[in-house]
Amino acid sequence: MTSRRDFFKAAALTGGAVAAASVSKVAMSALPEPVLQTSPDTMPPLVPNTGRPYNPVVTLNGWTLPWRMNQGVKEFHLVAEPVLREMAPGMTAHLWGYNGQSPGPTIEVVEGDRVRIFVTNKLPEHTSVHWHGQRLPNGMDGVTGLNQPGIPAGKTFVYEFEARRPGTFMYHPHADEMVQMAMGMMGFWVTHPKNKHPLISDVDRDYCFLLNAYDIDPGAYTPKIMTMLDFNLWTWNSRLFPGISPLVARKNDRVRLRVGNLTMTNHPIHIHGHEFEVTGTDGGPTPKAGRWPEVTVDIAVGQMRQMEFIASEEGDWAFHCHKSHHTMNAMGHDVPTMIGVDHRGMTKKITKLIPDYMVMGERGMADMSEMQMPLPDNTLPMMTGEGPFGSVEMGGMFSMLKVRKDQKPGDYSDPGWYKHPEGTIAYEFTGELAKPARSSGAGQPSMKLAQKQQPHIELKVRKPTGHAGH
Amino acid sequence: MTSRRDFFKAAALTGGAVAAASVSKVAMSALPEPVLQTSPDTMPPLVPNTGRPYNPVVTLNGWTLPWRMNQGVKEFHLVAEPVLREMAPGMTAHLWGYNGQSPGPTIEVVEGDRVRIFVTNKLPEHTSVHWHGQRLPNGMDGVTGLNQPGIPAGKTFVYEFEARRPGTFMYHPHADEMVQMAMGMMGFWVTHPKNKHPLISDVDRDYCFLLNAYDIDPGAYTPKIMTMLDFNLWTWNSRLFPGISPLVARKNDRVRLRVGNLTMTNHPIHIHGHEFEVTGTDGGPTPKAGRWPEVTVDIAVGQMRQMEFIASEEGDWAFHCHKSHHTMNAMGHDVPTMIGVDHRGMTKKITKLIPDYMVMGERGMADMSEMQMPLPDNTLPMMTGEGPFGSVEMGGMFSMLKVRKDQKPGDYSDPGWYKHPEGTIAYEFTGELAKPARSSGAGQPSMKLAQKQQPHIELKVRKPTGHAGH
Amino acid sequence: MTSRRDFFKAAALTGGAVAAASVSKVAMSALPEPVLQTSPDTMPPLVPNTGRPYNPVVTLNGWTLPWRMNQGVKEFHLVAEPVLREMAPGMTAHLWGYNGQSPGPTIEVVEGDRVRIFVTNKLPEHTSVHWHGQRLPNGMDGVTGLNQPGIPAGKTFVYEFEARRPGTFMYHPHADEMVQMAMGMMGFWVTHPKNKHPLISDVDRDYCFLLNAYDIDPGAYTPKIMTMLDFNLWTWNSRLFPGISPLVARKNDRVRLRVGNLTMTNHPIHIHGHEFEVTGTDGGPTPKAGRWPEVTVDIAVGQMRQMEFIASEEGDWAFHCHKSHHTMNAMGHDVPTMIGVDHRGMTKKITKLIPDYMVMGERGMADMSEMQMPLPDNTLPMMTGEGPFGSVEMGGMFSMLKVRKDQKPGDYSDPGWYKHPEGTIAYEFTGELAKPARSSGAGQPSMKLAQKQQPHIELKVRKPTGHAGH
Repeated sequence: MTSRRDFFKAAALTGGAVAAASVSKVAMSALPEPVLQTSPDTMPPLVPNTGRPYNPVVTLNGWTLPWRMNQGVKEFHLVAEPVLREMAPGMTAHLWGYNGQSPGPTIEVVEGDRVRIFVTNKLPEHTSVHWHGQRLPNGMDGVTGLNQPGIPAGKTFVYEFEARRPGTFMYHPHADEMVQMAMGMMGFWVTHPKNKHPLISDVDRDYCFLLNAYDIDPGAYTPKIMTMLDFNLWTWNSRLFPGISPLVARKNDRVRLRVGNLTMTNHPIHIHGHEFEVTGTDGGPTPKAGRWPEVTVDIAVGQMRQMEFIASEEGDWAFHCHKSHHTMNAMGHDVPTMIGVDHRGMTKKITKLIPDYMVMGERGMADMSEMQMPLPDNTLPMMTGEGPFGSVEMGGMFSMLKVRKDQKPGDYSDPGWYKHPEGTIAYEFTGELAKPARSSGAGQPSMKLAQKQQPHIELKVRKPTGHAGH
Repeated sequence: MTSRRDFFKAAALTGGAVAAASVSKVAMSALPEPVLQTSPDTMPPLVPNTGRPYNPVVTLNGWTLPWRMNQGVKEFHLVAEPVLREMAPGMTAHLWGYNGQSPGPTIEVVEGDRVRIFVTNKLPEHTSVHWHGQRLPNGMDGVTGLNQPGIPAGKTFVYEFEARRPGTFMYHPHADEMVQMAMGMMGFWVTHPKNKHPLISDVDRDYCFLLNAYDIDPGAYTPKIMTMLDFNLWTWNSRLFPGISPLVARKNDRVRLRVGNLTMTNHPIHIHGHEFEVTGTDGGPTPKAGRWPEVTVDIAVGQMRQMEFIASEEGDWAFHCHKSHHTMNAMGHDVPTMIGVDHRGMTKKITKLIPDYMVMGERGMADMSEMQMPLPDNTLPMMTGEGPFGSVEMGGMFSMLKVRKDQKPGDYSDPGWYKHPEGTIAYEFTGELAKPARSSGAGQPSMKLAQKQQPHIELKVRKPTGHAGH
Repeated sequence: MTSRRDFFKAAALTGGAVAAASVSKVAMSALPEPVLQTSPDTMPPLVPNTGRPYNPVVTLNGWTLPWRMNQGVKEFHLVAEPVLREMAPGMTAHLWGYNGQSPGPTIEVVEGDRVRIFVTNKLPEHTSVHWHGQRLPNGMDGVTGLNQPGIPAGKTFVYEFEARRPGTFMYHPHADEMVQMAMGMMGFWVTHPKNKHPLISDVDRDYCFLLNAYDIDPGAYTPKIMTMLDFNLWTWNSRLFPGISPLVARKNDRVRLRVGNLTMTNHPIHIHGHEFEVTGTDGGPTPKAGRWPEVTVDIAVGQMRQMEFIASEEGDWAFHCHKSHHTMNAMGHDVPTMIGVDHRGMTKKITKLIPDYMVMGERGMADMSEMQMPLPDNTLPMMTGEGPFGSVEMGGMFSMLKVRKDQKPGDYSDPGWYKHPEGTIAYEFTGELAKPARSSGAGQPSMKLAQKQQPHIELKVRKPTGHAGH
């Protein structure tokens, strides 16, 4: 088995046209052989060699589903089935998904394409597929009971419609919906524009992924499907940090991110070091005069937000959901946390006897991320991830944007850790200032220099003492 | 008692000027007789026959409060009181509301109108009414303690102000606010523009409703008023699917929806088959250059979002909150859900003995929506609603947008289930493709046809096997 | 100790240039003496007397950190440490913060300034500072493990970068982040524009504060740091109503509010009596054509929203988060709430015997806000705050916007309660209408007067009876 890194290198060398999946040649009236995926790695873009050309997307820790052309119709075959999904090295979940993985593969077509999707149901109950956001005949919309009968277990249904408008869509069941989505059934759909569109930019990198969430107890494998709020695993494409691929860009690339949310809460997606604009929703491209600069976009449930920015700042930039519990992995119940423990009185009494006494856990939890604590089977540490300067102390919905001057176009391989120019890292002060490098990229500050005078303000200085005894 | 369907037909025949409520003739200096409503049905628009004309709204499962003119002032009478609200056939809640229902009636006036509202308090504690979003004298703003004393039980207070700006507003208590809103006290207010406004469109249908939420245990009648997050009934105008009226439109109607949120969380409202724009907020009309196309709008607490779209696609389109738990009714504690049960080890051991063994409930829950399970009194099934193709398996914040070519203008009656043109419904594949109809409305695809060639990609096929034994 | 009111008056008299903190004169290569703050009062703006001038902000219940110039570099010294924070008179929390308070001081600089921040760690575990939203060298971005090693307990680190773009930013740890933010470590950063910027308005008042949340049991002092959702104290700058300063404006002032959210959920911030626009985010100023009028802005986690409005309406306007539980203080477990109690059957039986029987607590809770109930130590009443008309019955994220015609420019002192013009307060109706004042400011309504005729609608009147017995 080749590592992801090697795989990407190979992909880069062959121009990105490698795909880890296939279509067998069958008679055109028969069911296409389903293409399956066994790996949770990020697959290189599937460059189309039939139909109208387009710049394919890269699905984070996912892949694009190959199709076959049948008398002018693009035919896809989705198989709804139980899957094993590695959420990160060391933890695998029993989910429901499509074609061997959760989420299912990304479907990419071109505006105006006629599309036929065969959906085979290998689940133990009926299902359906709703094509979120699409304009299509009402009977193809996939709401069980309302638009079609459910697809019984063991059967295959046919959906067929024209991809009428360019955009980013999602697909998911509309049958026993709460359960089937809680089990991981969802996927992405990109309809590329047929012609140049005034509101759709050409970009150098085009990434997509879904936000999802699971409630799997430490030591368990299967999500609890009745959970409404207290999820303990917050994932991107059913992956957890440090199992999520980095986003890679060449310096000054125009990068597009397409992110859809199929959890039960808003996720404010935050990128460090850059501002971006929302250039599209699942409803279409946004008007240019209405685009706000943002560093955090709040993506509501059932929404897709398409962000674009110029990757102008070199480095390894954190990229994550800004809800602090969403960048943690499951918290075992045995984790000793004492800061919040009600130790009224007790600590006061103890500190009278032992002035430096500190209840274990009162010091916070950062140390724990480097401690070796026994964990249940199939469970990731709550805070983890080894960086160039020690533990990153994260989990869940966290990854990195890696911007490099020398990253080759089309090369999605991880370039390793950023090598900081001298004098650009925060450092310990031991009485001498380091000679800092001037930051690049923004021109020199035209500030008025050095009035060596203090502000004329009232003086009121207190020595910091902490609060021993409380 | 006539059915809703008949009622609407009658309303349509008489031009929409029927109302299920009244105003009695009284001396102008006396308190107007309160108009009450006993039915939870959607009432036809209340066409004004005094004052400046306007196109009235339709309140989903609600009604508009009649007024009287008194020397140039529009007088309304709201009665705050305990009410019985049928949330759906089979379930009635004990709420607090106004004039016999929760939510209270919609108030409709015209920009520049002088408005006097008498508020009688028949609750067991004091109350007040805050006119959310209005420009008015500070002493009319309704915050108890800050802007006025509370209205004591048994007393009537007078609010009077000019409706200074056109828009969509809400009203609710600002006295024991958490409790009184958790009990259902809220209503809508629409101020129609006096003159043609460049940012306010004429529309063919203008619907409004409020998002609210309750925590009523299965078998109980009264909301628990301390709940912050774990609500179990997510409602539109205190109604649950299948008790929520459909939105009805004639094909190519311009439809406006005005939706306000007075729950404790965001609700991403999603319409199938169409894109819409947010044309206004409770702060006023949005600028045209700043309107995004959307299929899901996230409505935050204390916000009103006004959406507009052309109902160009015929059919019965799902229309719902996209949080999957919000389209479910209350879950009884006896519902057997086993997918998420921690059966580590146990299942493994059993499947060694019986390879096809599946714990009951592991198959998901769709079957349950068609099972006859005993439910507590006054409790709806968790997943329910009979559609043309079987159970819709929904509850809560779910309804339908029904678009018909032959729906008469002003006719709000339910047209029944959509009759799909031949070849436009997803179908079971049994070896032969059906001859699909080309989708209407979007022109033919101008795609490049049929290169009968497979994409040149690496082959890696695996037979889908599921994961017996995990 | 002077009261806040006196303090403000003093500040106003001296032109706003008073600050309650200081910088000592030290050699330029040594660590600057840290400036600390002991008071939770709102400090007047810190008017700069070195470098490029700007109009400083006012931090609600906070302050701006003084700096020293060192050879053209603005030097600040932050001390991360345990602090005692008075959340409101009567309740003090044991938090972690910076320079004596939580949140830490606001940092104000000018676009193009070169900034050096010394960060001393007096916490019991390592920390770091992330400068949310800034463009800076990757090694200054503050993500422990990824961009730098953590700052060990007892050590001082140096961050240095140019303030490249004008805007509103935040700072907080990116080390044991969940815990350290749950303990109160965060602060504001404003970079004023160097030159006139077409999208950045001059304003008369410029307020800023952070949204934060804590989980401190009634009677306890220290937050529980594992809480994801069930927080019981929703705070602005770690203050609770009635401990939050009012926002004060002179009539027709242009007012800017900069509000950042570092909690775990969205906060819909609502202002009464005025509409506003979002003129900027932490990503930069918003384009004018894309600004919506709003009365409630939903601020997501990790977002800053900058709102602007003209304070054109005189009065004391409520200003609060619109989630009703977020304007309450912690609810003790002994609070007798019975409305939601499951008294199926029981009440029915009792009311047969005693028709007017009402279970205690069924009447709502407003009365309780005026009751004298014994509370645990260090605990605020759930609903509190004395207004000119009795209890305001609020807590948490609630304050007031006080607009006065005669408020002096630069005067931030509380003007006391609004004196309503005669005839502008909601009043009890006892058979006679009061002669109301016409509302000012909007011109007279040009309505069509007084058709003394009832709308021709069907009559169906029911006497309001309440629902005795349910």
